[in-house]
Amino acid sequence: MIDYTPPLARMIEELKKIPGIGRKSAQRIAFYLLRTDKKKALGLADAIVQAREKIFYCSICNNITAIEPCEICSSSERDGEKICVVEEPFNIHSIEKTGLFHGYYHVLMGNLSPIRGIGPDELRISGLVERIKNGSFREVILATSPTTEGSATAHYLTEILRQYKITITRIAQGLPVGADLDYADEVTIAKAIEGRLEVK
Amino acid sequence: MIDYTPPLARMIEELKKIPGIGRKSAQRIAFYLLRTDKKKALGLADAIVQAREKIFYCSICNNITAIEPCEICSSSERDGEKICVVEEPFNIHSIEKTGLFHGYYHVLMGNLSPIRGIGPDELRISGLVERIKNGSFREVILATSPTTEGSATAHYLTEILRQYKITITRIAQGLPVGADLDYADEVTIAKAIEGRLEVK
Repeated sequence: MIDYTPPLARMIEELKKIPGIGRKSAQRIAFYLLRTDKKKALGLADAIVQAREKIFYCSICNNITAIEPCEICSSSERDGEKICVVEEPFNIHSIEKTGLFHGYYHVLMGNLSPIRGIGPDELRISGLVERIKNGSFREVILATSPTTEGSATAHYLTEILRQYKITITRIAQGLPVGADLDYADEVTIAKAIEGRLEVK
Repeated sequence: MIDYTPPLARMIEELKKIPGIGRKSAQRIAFYLLRTDKKKALGLADAIVQAREKIFYCSICNNITAIEPCEICSSSERDGEKICVVEEPFNIHSIEKTGLFHGYYHVLMGNLSPIRGIGPDELRISGLVERIKNGSFREVILATSPTTEGSATAHYLTEILRQYKITITRIAQGLPVGADLDYADEVTIAKAIEGRLEVK
């Protein structure tokens, strides 16, 4: 059996390293990149190189950015009373898309996870404490995921931040919009009942 | 709403151009390429560039190759009596994987498709005719897909090649291995009955 020509085999191997892309998808993408306009294929390659060369983490909030400080930290139009704590830089985009939050962010770069050896020192917690201590924030919103690790991280942050004069809030847990109560798990339903709001 | 930093937005846009990769997948891959080792991300970019720089079509069979003629055309260990006609270069790999065919190939670079304006002149048919006229092939296997267009192409080739002293065969149509007769369509069952083989 004659295998793929080496440059194609290598491209397939590199594509296969992307999580969620198996052998078949890697082949399909590689063939597309071979057959499409050369400009399009090289455009993707260049975009990857440029992203890796130009993007770094904001020194204030750890968001990914190509300017220092990032667009959000350097904006004077944000709500200076609120800071939202998230796990990863891309969580910022998810929250921005709602259009409901106009404050600043702080990215922890992960969650506490004793099992994976991630303790408070591995996360960007000291920077958060400094910002809250020295800033004029009046509310910190803990927007880590409602997973075991995310909840443990939120709990840990609550303990640490309690000493500062700041309101600590946690994003709500409950049924996702459009969900069927019949199919929801008990823990989610319990959280939805606990977090119920008065209808006005 | 603050959008992604421009180099990231551009990477997502370039990834979205790949068929089958939507916005969510493009974001996921882009974030992976940002977070993974720089070496891995740049390795992918370089593999794309190298593939586009080094790969071209074999002047004999139109297979994709990095050497001229391709590995198969330049091999003296192949069965010189058989030539297999396929639609696209990557079809060669699918047939090679079976380990059942050891002859040479000819890639048409598509199928006849009046609706898309692809006539005989758009395909690499004259090269095939030349190879059959001047070569020592004794069998040509028409391995275009059993679609309307692939079948029309096979039929057209049969008409053209009939005048040469060569056996013309068509790959078998029938039920795929593992298929349930209950779920197969009538045309496939009809083809399976027509193409039945005597059990020995």
